[in-house]
Amino acid sequence: MNSSFPEVIRWDEQRQRLLLLDQTRLPEEVVVLDCAKVQDVWDAIKRLSVRGAPAIGIAAAYAVCLAIRPVEGVTPPSALAAARAIEAIEHLASSRPTAVNLFWALNRMRAIAVEHASRGDVEGGADDLFETLLAEASEIHREDQELCQSIGRHGADRMRDATCLLTHCNAGSLATGGEGTALAVIYELQRRGREVRVFADETRPLLQGARLTAWELTRSGVPVTVITDSMAAIILQSGQVDAVIVGADRITARGDAANKIGTYALAVLARHHSVPFFVAAPHSTFDRSIQCGDEIPIEQRDSSEIRFAGSRQVVPESASVFNPAFDVTPAELITAIITDRGVIEPPTEAGISFLFENHIGP
Amino acid sequence: MNSSFPEVIRWDEQRQRLLLLDQTRLPEEVVVLDCAKVQDVWDAIKRLSVRGAPAIGIAAAYAVCLAIRPVEGVTPPSALAAARAIEAIEHLASSRPTAVNLFWALNRMRAIAVEHASRGDVEGGADDLFETLLAEASEIHREDQELCQSIGRHGADRMRDATCLLTHCNAGSLATGGEGTALAVIYELQRRGREVRVFADETRPLLQGARLTAWELTRSGVPVTVITDSMAAIILQSGQVDAVIVGADRITARGDAANKIGTYALAVLARHHSVPFFVAAPHSTFDRSIQCGDEIPIEQRDSSEIRFAGSRQVVPESASVFNPAFDVTPAELITAIITDRGVIEPPTEAGISFLFENHIGP
Repeated sequence: MNSSFPEVIRWDEQRQRLLLLDQTRLPEEVVVLDCAKVQDVWDAIKRLSVRGAPAIGIAAAYAVCLAIRPVEGVTPPSALAAARAIEAIEHLASSRPTAVNLFWALNRMRAIAVEHASRGDVEGGADDLFETLLAEASEIHREDQELCQSIGRHGADRMRDATCLLTHCNAGSLATGGEGTALAVIYELQRRGREVRVFADETRPLLQGARLTAWELTRSGVPVTVITDSMAAIILQSGQVDAVIVGADRITARGDAANKIGTYALAVLARHHSVPFFVAAPHSTFDRSIQCGDEIPIEQRDSSEIRFAGSRQVVPESASVFNPAFDVTPAELITAIITDRGVIEPPTEAGISFLFENHIGP
Repeated sequence: MNSSFPEVIRWDEQRQRLLLLDQTRLPEEVVVLDCAKVQDVWDAIKRLSVRGAPAIGIAAAYAVCLAIRPVEGVTPPSALAAARAIEAIEHLASSRPTAVNLFWALNRMRAIAVEHASRGDVEGGADDLFETLLAEASEIHREDQELCQSIGRHGADRMRDATCLLTHCNAGSLATGGEGTALAVIYELQRRGREVRVFADETRPLLQGARLTAWELTRSGVPVTVITDSMAAIILQSGQVDAVIVGADRITARGDAANKIGTYALAVLARHHSVPFFVAAPHSTFDRSIQCGDEIPIEQRDSSEIRFAGSRQVVPESASVFNPAFDVTPAELITAIITDRGVIEPPTEAGISFLFENHIGP
């Protein structure tokens, strides 16, 4: 990955603020959002200024710290600080419903705040809580970089001699605290000297493939061709693509994977053309509390995302619009799930359980 | 169909000009292009102001007349008029390569011009040629209205109790001289009292589904929901859709059908979900001179159609873009082809031959 790459999420230690790369402005402008309040981050998550399952988990974790950061040197009482942190956690959890990494990160933050609240008011307790929460958010961030690296290595091993990959949406540096999930595999292949090239679905309606994946891959020297989502079928038919690789927002106990709308279509098309279909995600994307994909809540987004193209109204008012942000690909259509802990091939409940239960480490 | 519907193609008898509804401006504005020269029509076809296989055939036929219309009462010599008409035909044939209806209509015009040229210079010959060509263009236009009606009737018979249809791009009134091909079936079902409703793929990159299909269906009182092309899979999975129905730009002797990019993906997805997939087209869309879909020339369009969203550059300069306007659906994925002459189910070379060879009438 190019070292000139802007940081997607950065905690400004001196000013105690969260800096987020505004991904709605890419690729034209590199704009950094300076978030001082929880609501600033909630808004940034909601409008997709920060997006990608791991990245929103990290951003939300830091946002909890904003709820209790000392303002003008004034620290709230210890119990009040804990209450404010818990309130912020509840609020942040309402920003987007599908990606489980958000809840996974917030649960880690909640455990700390709840433990702190149980102690009641303590001298210096609020400062303590702030530091502990900030350390946890930083740890989530740091861990994610490692998870991305591990995914990259496991994925690159599994890719064998693949050189041409097709991806959907953005599951790269912009979606995580590290090099990405699906794209981490591509960056690792590149480091290993593979001349890899990528077809990127533009990914309607918000064009994360065109705007973000094309931008980050070309900055890293990976040749990329952008296609409309509707062209993936003929690209797969042409025999050029060795594998499809995508990220995920939530994976169930049996291996059904929610990801950006259009992923399910791509999985069906890959199966029809006998092209392997990979999902790459950290263990924090698994939600083993649910069995089947139809239990995953699917966010419905505003119809204006489809009704308007820029300022132009392309869908007449009299027509309806349907705009789910995600779909679910059943495990049966997934060749393998590439995780930081190894590759589950084919994805089964037993395989997923084995990976979780036999894992040593974080 | 709503009687307030603007005319897509109209020959202005008094001014001897061709009036075309500018479909690039829909749905926001109803703008009529006033074409006085062949080049005006060539440009309108190229930039898709007039589009849809049957409609471009009709527009091109009228455009030939523009090449030899008397200007300020001055009529060219008879042989020169014929030469000009033939030159216009050759030029118009270069506007778009895929839809065979363009060549089919131009071939009818060419036969007249060539016959006229063989006579040499004749007194009043140019006026004669102009009138004959105009009569032929009008006849192509009139015939197409009938073909649409026949397609509508045959299709509505075949649809049995279907009420929810999914379509791609625009194969309606805006694409033909009549009520359309795929949408003619929907209008006929509506006339028969069926409470039909439609899912319309927005159809990237130029959004003919969002802009045109949604516009014409709602004006005709048919409820329509616009989806991104990438959502068709989950709509099909949901079990709501009784049938997929699309138009075609060229159909080979064995029944492979070229149509708007994304159609092939939709056919694969329909098959995966056991939803019948219909192609509706007039006999003028068949090209029995070729056997297989891979012989159909596929127009590659400018990358700017994908690179830009309005004035916003969404794909960075450093990334490549692939932009074929059409793809080919093999006959094996098509449940039936609905034509003005009857329904070919399943599409086979024998079935297509039978329909052509046993047809009485135009």
